[in-house]
Amino acid sequence: MEIRATRPKVASPLDAVARQWPAQAVSDQVKQKSDWDLKSLRNFSPRSRYLVGVSGGRDSVALLHRLIDLGYRRLVVCHLDHQLRGRASKADAKFVERLAATLNCEFEIERTDVAELARKAKQSIETVGRTARYEFFARVARRRRCHTIFLGHHADDLVETFLMNMLRGAGPTGFVGMREVVSRRVFGIELKIVRPLLGVWPEEIDAFIKGHRIEFREDATNESLGPVRNRMRRRVIPYIERQLGRRVRATIWRAAIIAADEAEWIEGLVDPKQSESEQLDTHRLRAQPRALQRRTIHKWLQSRGVGNLEFDLIERVRALVDPETTIAKTNLPRDRYVRRRAKKIFIE
Amino acid sequence: MEIRATRPKVASPLDAVARQWPAQAVSDQVKQKSDWDLKSLRNFSPRSRYLVGVSGGRDSVALLHRLIDLGYRRLVVCHLDHQLRGRASKADAKFVERLAATLNCEFEIERTDVAELARKAKQSIETVGRTARYEFFARVARRRRCHTIFLGHHADDLVETFLMNMLRGAGPTGFVGMREVVSRRVFGIELKIVRPLLGVWPEEIDAFIKGHRIEFREDATNESLGPVRNRMRRRVIPYIERQLGRRVRATIWRAAIIAADEAEWIEGLVDPKQSESEQLDTHRLRAQPRALQRRTIHKWLQSRGVGNLEFDLIERVRALVDPETTIAKTNLPRDRYVRRRAKKIFIE
Repeated sequence: MEIRATRPKVASPLDAVARQWPAQAVSDQVKQKSDWDLKSLRNFSPRSRYLVGVSGGRDSVALLHRLIDLGYRRLVVCHLDHQLRGRASKADAKFVERLAATLNCEFEIERTDVAELARKAKQSIETVGRTARYEFFARVARRRRCHTIFLGHHADDLVETFLMNMLRGAGPTGFVGMREVVSRRVFGIELKIVRPLLGVWPEEIDAFIKGHRIEFREDATNESLGPVRNRMRRRVIPYIERQLGRRVRATIWRAAIIAADEAEWIEGLVDPKQSESEQLDTHRLRAQPRALQRRTIHKWLQSRGVGNLEFDLIERVRALVDPETTIAKTNLPRDRYVRRRAKKIFIE
Repeated sequence: MEIRATRPKVASPLDAVARQWPAQAVSDQVKQKSDWDLKSLRNFSPRSRYLVGVSGGRDSVALLHRLIDLGYRRLVVCHLDHQLRGRASKADAKFVERLAATLNCEFEIERTDVAELARKAKQSIETVGRTARYEFFARVARRRRCHTIFLGHHADDLVETFLMNMLRGAGPTGFVGMREVVSRRVFGIELKIVRPLLGVWPEEIDAFIKGHRIEFREDATNESLGPVRNRMRRRVIPYIERQLGRRVRATIWRAAIIAADEAEWIEGLVDPKQSESEQLDTHRLRAQPRALQRRTIHKWLQSRGVGNLEFDLIERVRALVDPETTIAKTNLPRDRYVRRRAKKIFIE
């Protein structure tokens, strides 16, 4: 298939990245095996217990089957019924429950009226749906004492997230799309999120699903796709490819991987004494390179419980460090402020 | 003007970046002044001598006028006649020569048949034109003993370069678009390239040109625009903006600035003992984070005279470091190889 010829080999995108190129060699390898060996799972023994998020859609169902194939036996299938499609949503839930039973997995389910929550919070259905899922996963993680969850995001998801983050001006780390392994604090629970399919393209998932005649729920796949992601997937990326006369997804995927690697490394260079302290010392911050200032402020705001960190906010805080500025205060969401006084920056 | 409301203030994009947001305050500031104060020039005293690249097009002519306004008196106007448009090219050259005389600047000109060179080299006219310009600048720099050159690239150029580099899979540093101040070695001459307009949008340059009734040569502007850049400018970016229902140029500009800052910082962390040595020690390289490995290999290849460093090549070299790999050789352009032997990586 020509599509695959320009794409990375279906393996761990992070660790095996060096072996995935040159791309010319890839198509044959793909043809020879229809399954993926997901090297990223090397650090997650099949004997341990894991949660798996399963919507019933193609990607998460493929992931679940693949995990079973690879010998994972103690999986807890987690399904959040978003109640967005009435009876169809109930049927999704039933489908996932039966699938879990068939594969000898445990099963956890909750129901949330995501549309209603979105109306109340005046947020998009995708945003509320995502938050609701992570909160559900955190509750299950606490109940089951199992903090690692596998999710079915694939290479296109990474590409789209990376582009969307860049185009919406997410902060210096937002640049990064998704990472293959990442920790995320939800309700005081440290969830370890693992995305084994992040180096697998949807066409490869399709081939796996067809090759093994695996059943899935067609509409459940798109439940979490917001209108922006949909437009990125179906219009923007294809349009760029038509204009440039070649595929760009693999290239953007690599850019996202580089950015993730650099972000991970750079974050490790931030001094936790600085980023976890109550106050930031302006003198010390000013002496650092701009890139490190941004990362330090980003981590510091996170550690102070400030979420949704867009680039603007980071830069406004960074402006307080400028010795020439007369501004000594900048707004945070929810009526909080970052202030500068006596060469210290703090939140009140 | 609504367009400007979402854009950064017209000032130094790098040093003053923190003061450029929030964007809401920007439009008024723009309205109040039609000229830009180009803070980036603070490090370049008006009393010193500088080269200025002037095609005769809108951007470089605006830059030249602005420099004169700001008190720069010892400018050497440099014009390369690309001979791409016959008599019109000659008229451009005449125009620039007269302009230099009017503004009391010295003048340097050379002629190159760029189309012919491109045919011979089997490269694009833009690529050959760019190389020819830098070589011309380097010759003038040597003759005039003046190694700093001002160029008229603006904010849209940065945005387009950043996107194009990302979409063509340029190496870990290619990510970065253009930098406001950067050194570049051409013919053994260290050129310092300064782009004072990198934070100025073309609409602002237009307003300046119109406000001061400045003459320029309309077609000279597009001489260096390749088809890909043209499609980015006129189709891809407008299409993305239509699909997302908002302007994205300012956001991409910020992303490019962040990437440039991070790249600058990260490059400073590469150990020159490693990157400038004849051989790379695989053991030492392996112990470093992936991101640092990439930067080190990138710098090392550059110091060994290997140009056009795309991500693929860096990853192929990086693959040689993998203890599990049996590959001990990878191709470089021009029949050279990178080899691994006895835990060393070297070029032959």
